[in-house]
Amino acid sequence: MTSTTYTSRVFSLETMDVPGGTETILRGGRHLFPLLPQAFAGVRRIGVIGWGPQGRAQALNLRDSLAGADIRVAVGLRPGSASAADARAHGFTEENGTLGDWLAVTADSDLVILLIADAALAAHHQEIFAALKPSAVIGLSHGFLLGHLRETGGGFPPGHGVIAVCPKGMGDSVRRLYRQGEDINGAGINSSYAVHADPDGRATDLALGWSVALGSPYTFRTTLDSEYLSDIVGERAILLGAVHGIVESLYTRARLVGDDPVAAYEKTCENITGPIARTISHSGMRAVREGLDATGRDVFDRAYTATYASAREIVAEIYDEVADGTELRSVILAERRLGSRPMSEIGGSPMWSVGDEVHARRGERDLPVEPFTAGVFVATMTAQIDEFAERGHPWSEIVNESVIEAVDSLLPYMHARDVAHMVDNCSRTARLGARRWGPRFQSAYGQIAFPAAEHPADEALLTAFETHPVHEALAAAAKLRPSVDISVS
Amino acid sequence: MTSTTYTSRVFSLETMDVPGGTETILRGGRHLFPLLPQAFAGVRRIGVIGWGPQGRAQALNLRDSLAGADIRVAVGLRPGSASAADARAHGFTEENGTLGDWLAVTADSDLVILLIADAALAAHHQEIFAALKPSAVIGLSHGFLLGHLRETGGGFPPGHGVIAVCPKGMGDSVRRLYRQGEDINGAGINSSYAVHADPDGRATDLALGWSVALGSPYTFRTTLDSEYLSDIVGERAILLGAVHGIVESLYTRARLVGDDPVAAYEKTCENITGPIARTISHSGMRAVREGLDATGRDVFDRAYTATYASAREIVAEIYDEVADGTELRSVILAERRLGSRPMSEIGGSPMWSVGDEVHARRGERDLPVEPFTAGVFVATMTAQIDEFAERGHPWSEIVNESVIEAVDSLLPYMHARDVAHMVDNCSRTARLGARRWGPRFQSAYGQIAFPAAEHPADEALLTAFETHPVHEALAAAAKLRPSVDISVS
Repeated sequence: MTSTTYTSRVFSLETMDVPGGTETILRGGRHLFPLLPQAFAGVRRIGVIGWGPQGRAQALNLRDSLAGADIRVAVGLRPGSASAADARAHGFTEENGTLGDWLAVTADSDLVILLIADAALAAHHQEIFAALKPSAVIGLSHGFLLGHLRETGGGFPPGHGVIAVCPKGMGDSVRRLYRQGEDINGAGINSSYAVHADPDGRATDLALGWSVALGSPYTFRTTLDSEYLSDIVGERAILLGAVHGIVESLYTRARLVGDDPVAAYEKTCENITGPIARTISHSGMRAVREGLDATGRDVFDRAYTATYASAREIVAEIYDEVADGTELRSVILAERRLGSRPMSEIGGSPMWSVGDEVHARRGERDLPVEPFTAGVFVATMTAQIDEFAERGHPWSEIVNESVIEAVDSLLPYMHARDVAHMVDNCSRTARLGARRWGPRFQSAYGQIAFPAAEHPADEALLTAFETHPVHEALAAAAKLRPSVDISVS
Repeated sequence: MTSTTYTSRVFSLETMDVPGGTETILRGGRHLFPLLPQAFAGVRRIGVIGWGPQGRAQALNLRDSLAGADIRVAVGLRPGSASAADARAHGFTEENGTLGDWLAVTADSDLVILLIADAALAAHHQEIFAALKPSAVIGLSHGFLLGHLRETGGGFPPGHGVIAVCPKGMGDSVRRLYRQGEDINGAGINSSYAVHADPDGRATDLALGWSVALGSPYTFRTTLDSEYLSDIVGERAILLGAVHGIVESLYTRARLVGDDPVAAYEKTCENITGPIARTISHSGMRAVREGLDATGRDVFDRAYTATYASAREIVAEIYDEVADGTELRSVILAERRLGSRPMSEIGGSPMWSVGDEVHARRGERDLPVEPFTAGVFVATMTAQIDEFAERGHPWSEIVNESVIEAVDSLLPYMHARDVAHMVDNCSRTARLGARRWGPRFQSAYGQIAFPAAEHPADEALLTAFETHPVHEALAAAAKLRPSVDISVS
């Protein structure tokens, strides 16, 4: 069980009740920014390495939050990086000393935040480690590098703090909700933090300061290992991979019973990214079922109980393979193979061609929650929650990786673009994972779960859902962020 | 490149032309049985360990073939094995000294043929190795154990010959076609053979003798490594995994364009296991297209060229993961997980419920080859052929693992039962592989390949198919077996 208790010399902490105990949390907000210089004691220069979606969001948020402090944020890029122009357009320039070569910026920084792509990290971490100042702290937002080092028998360079602050959402959301925080204090994306190495005792407050500066409404503690597992599994399951499989299987099912493409899309994909995500975000998972009439609840119940077993089986398999290192090996093999054979895109699948028409109809009416779709989706979400709970993840991490990140960040993004866009455009590791596992959900649901939904619902599974400890954990987490407008323009 | 040339002190060998060179082959037949005692010199007792489909078939064939020789065939089973009764019913009994505990039979045998399930081999091979007589030869019909030893850092016990004779078909076919050979000399399932360790120079002729005694129409040489790779990849691709994915995706496609379930099944699954398999078996791959009219050929061409890229991408991924050991790790993880969570079955998928009705309609008319289905299937087959050729497999192995085993053994079996039955009842390693990879083909074909079939066919891909060296290799292999009735009653 991961320890979820911690103390801070800088920030006031709170205790949140979770099933089976409590977790320490730091509630964020702009009113804490005056404390940042204290949290960042010993850090005069922060180097954000990489200008992908996370790199950009974090560099901008940090610069804004630290505007009054005497702490410089610089961006480091690979030679010839295509991102240089965009970084300059956002005020990170060579002229003002806030843009440079990644190794040069690394060598000049007291906190080095590594936000380059996983494959680049795998290939270049040793050069980066070699460039570090003696007392520089290594910052990560993702546990991938730990998994990679473990798989390859490497390690972090001794003598350096190693901390992680992991926003539970896409870079786009991390920046957008931070800016909303100018009007609504506390808006943002939650983060977990982890201390992997702490040679001088500074690590916890530095990590907390980093998280507050990113605008995290609340920060909870985890370990790099736990973060890695929940993140890599989550993106293959309810955060992305399973979503793709779910919508493809449901869409096909709707078309097979005679729905035209637009109606089928509205009952399935649009329903998940729209009303179902919104309901869970505002009112929790049970509210999805409670909003249905008696007939709808019966359909939900059958779909839920028919889907749960298949979902749990696949999530367990994903987890085993991520934990074992097998999934990481397949990612590395795929990276090699993609050198010669580019990854195909899934955006050409028939269902995506009706996306535009469906988008155009938005606003004509409020789309009601479709009960079968809802049962399938909520069952998948619950299966992931249960698997993570069984494996000992902290409740904050469980609810963020299985619910909040989905309904507050990823699904709204998919609502604005579409699922295919997401699958074809997210991080490489996530893309590869979604392509491997999405079809497993699609197949199992189409072939096993949906036929089983003809049968009466399993009362024991329904009771387990109704009385699930996650609902309280989710409500407690919801209290810690304001109701922000999470729609993506 | 695997060496495919060999010599024998006992049997007359032939040379077969293959693309780029020649391969040595041994043409089999009952007329060779008098040579078996010479080939088996030094072997008085053969122990067949395991009574699964392969174990039963091989024990029976060996006993029949060696009936005149002074060589005893005994069967060794695990304590409490459920197979004992069936073995006794086939004349292997404790009373006549031909049935016993697996370690006891091992200790008593000069050639120990290990035909237990992969998981059991992984768990118990060390006990079995420890029981061997000093000069006993280890016989395998599958490269799995080599892969496992490599993955776990183990090895074969020094001083023992290690040979493999690998029938390119299911146990059921190995026995059934052998018995047809009583009437039609040379009927049987081809085998590859490999010599992994040969301390005393006997190994090649012993392996060839074993293969002749099994009734192999022809025997070609490979390595244990090459066999393992082609077999494990093949069962995840055209032999089983891809077949399942193909039929599910094609069936859905047919239903979506309005076909009723029976018509959809006949155009897809029934078409592959029936007329397409038969055409390839009798006349080769090009004959599938040649038998179509002009409109049909256009449909075939579009389906072929739209499917090829997706198929190749997935086969390459499967190959990488099998070669890397990653796939094997996932099999081992699944075995552990299945201890507590049984594998679900796919036979409940909607398409299988119409199987009975379709079977009942057989004989009413000859089902014509469906062009779209044929293009998709042949493209997948060709993709596997090309991947194996690129990776350096011998042509005999390529055509057996990619074509002959499919059309002469597996597809006829699926025609008699159904694909779902096969997926739910074959070897555990194959089941797991089919469940992992079948959905990849299903997804990619439904989402990427079929939409792409709207476009004009790619002439370069079609020309490559037309002029493919595999057609000659296949024709050469076909000459080496009689036309037997391969239908399964």
